[in-house]
Amino acid sequence: MTMHATGFAKGHGTGNDFVLVADPAGDRPLLPGEVRALADRRFGVGGDGVIRAVPAGRAGDAALDDAPAGTWAMDYWNADGSASEMCGNGVRVFVRFLLEQGLAELPDGGSIDVATRAGVKRVVRHGDLLAVDLGPFALGGTRLVAADGLDVARPGLDVSTGNPHVVVALADEAELEALDLHRAPSLDPVAEHGANVEFVVPGVIADGIGSIRMRVHERGVGETLSCGTGAVAAALATRHWSGEAADRWIVDVPGGRLEVDVDARGHAWLTGPAEIVFRGEALSPAP
Amino acid sequence: MTMHATGFAKGHGTGNDFVLVADPAGDRPLLPGEVRALADRRFGVGGDGVIRAVPAGRAGDAALDDAPAGTWAMDYWNADGSASEMCGNGVRVFVRFLLEQGLAELPDGGSIDVATRAGVKRVVRHGDLLAVDLGPFALGGTRLVAADGLDVARPGLDVSTGNPHVVVALADEAELEALDLHRAPSLDPVAEHGANVEFVVPGVIADGIGSIRMRVHERGVGETLSCGTGAVAAALATRHWSGEAADRWIVDVPGGRLEVDVDARGHAWLTGPAEIVFRGEALSPAP
Repeated sequence: MTMHATGFAKGHGTGNDFVLVADPAGDRPLLPGEVRALADRRFGVGGDGVIRAVPAGRAGDAALDDAPAGTWAMDYWNADGSASEMCGNGVRVFVRFLLEQGLAELPDGGSIDVATRAGVKRVVRHGDLLAVDLGPFALGGTRLVAADGLDVARPGLDVSTGNPHVVVALADEAELEALDLHRAPSLDPVAEHGANVEFVVPGVIADGIGSIRMRVHERGVGETLSCGTGAVAAALATRHWSGEAADRWIVDVPGGRLEVDVDARGHAWLTGPAEIVFRGEALSPAP
Repeated sequence: MTMHATGFAKGHGTGNDFVLVADPAGDRPLLPGEVRALADRRFGVGGDGVIRAVPAGRAGDAALDDAPAGTWAMDYWNADGSASEMCGNGVRVFVRFLLEQGLAELPDGGSIDVATRAGVKRVVRHGDLLAVDLGPFALGGTRLVAADGLDVARPGLDVSTGNPHVVVALADEAELEALDLHRAPSLDPVAEHGANVEFVVPGVIADGIGSIRMRVHERGVGETLSCGTGAVAAALATRHWSGEAADRWIVDVPGGRLEVDVDARGHAWLTGPAEIVFRGEALSPAP
C-alpha cells in the first residue's frame, strides 16, 4: 500500500509518542493500513498512535464534525489501526503540533478547544506546559489485583476517566521496582472490557500538593512509559485515600512528570509537557 | 544536550533500522549522547543504530581514514552509544542513503567501495537489491545450546563472520515457532565474548539454491527482525551440513528475505533490500 501522507511530524508527551499529519482541507482521511504503516517503529515512522489535525465539519466523522465550526478536531488512531476517542497525552501533543505548524495561536494563560470523539476538550497553556480539562470522574468499587513480582493480591480501586482504570497502592518504591508487568495483572472480579492498571507509591503531601510515583499496564498494550488518563486515575484514587487532603498532585511516570488538579467544579485537569521532536517527509511506500 | 544533527534520514534493511546523517565536510562527528538521543524510539528518531556518512580522510577515526581518498566511510554506532565495526544490513542502507542523497552513483551491476572499521567493503547493485562482500569466513567447533521453548539442548556450530555466531538446526517450523527468545540462549561451553545465536530450519535445495528460515538472538540486544551477518552465518552452517550442496542460499528472517552467496574465492556475499523510509529535520533538543 502507498502512504499518501507525505508530510508529517513526530512528537511525544512524557514518552507517549505520536505521528501527526495536518489535513486543513479534510481530503486526507486516515486509513487503518496507513495508520499501521506510519506507526510501525521499524518499517515506518513509529508511534503509539497517529493523529490527523482536521477542521471540525471536514473530518468525515460525525463524532468530530459535531463540534462548532472553527474548532480543530483530533482524529486519533491507535497504532493497531483502530480509531480511538481520546488520549490525555495525545491532546497536548496535538495542540503543540497546531502551534508549531502555525495552525493556531495560544498565548500563555489562553485556552483552545479541541474536538475529540469523546467531546470538546479545553486546553490551557501554562508557560511551556499544556493543561487539558478531562471533565468529571467517577470512583467505583474494589477489585483484587495480582501481578508478577507482587507477593499477594492487593485491593485496587476502580476509577473511570472516560476509560476504565484500576489503581493499586503499594507500600514503597522497592515494591514498585519489583513489579514485572510483562504479563497483564489479573483482576478479581474480572473487568468486563478490561482495564488499565496503575500501581502507585504515595509520597508526602506538603503545601497542599500531593505526589505519587506510578507504573502502568495499559490494556492490550503492556507496560508503557506514560498514560495520561492513568496518571489522572492514580491521582484521583490517592486523593480519595488521603481524605481529599490535596487537590493538586504531582505524578512521576517512567517517561516524565505530569500534574493532576481537581477544580472547583470537580473536573480533573491533566498538565504536562508536549514536544515536537522532528518534521519528516515520507519517501517511499511502506510495506 | 542538544542534537546538532538537524537533517537526517531513516532507513531499514529487512527491518534492521538506522538513522543516517551526511557529513561531507567531516565537521559533525557523532557523540555517544547524541547517538543515544537520536536512536531513542520515543524521545528521538528511533533506530537500531546511527550511521554518519563522511569522506575517508575526514572521519576523525584512524580505522576509517585509512581507506583510499574518495571512499565514503560508514561511521557506524549502536543505539547504546558505542561505535561498531560493521553491520551487514547497515552497509546496504548506507549505500542506499548515498544514492538517495546524490552523494554517489551506482548503475545496475556496478560496484562501490565503503570504508568501515572492519576494512573496505565492496557493494554491488543488482537491480533494487544491494550485495556486500563480507569476505572470508571460518567454521569452528560445536557447543550445546539451550533455549526456552526447546525440549533439550541442541548442538550448535560456531561460525565467525567477523563477529561470533552459533548456529543451531531445528527439526521443523513448529520448533522454530515454539522458541521463546526473550531470554538469551545458554551456551555450553560459554562463549568468551558472547555470541549471536541463529536457529534455522533448512528447506529443500533445488536448482543449486538452498533455503532456510531463521530466527536470531543478538547478544546484548535480544531477538531482532533481522541480523545480516547472522543470516550469513546461518547459510554457511547449513551449507556445511549439506556437504556444500549449494553456494546460493535464500534466508527468510522475520523482517524479510536475504540471500547469501559463496563465491569462487570463498568470500560470503550478503544480498538484500535497503530502503530509505523518510527524511527528517530535528526541531528541538532531545532529552
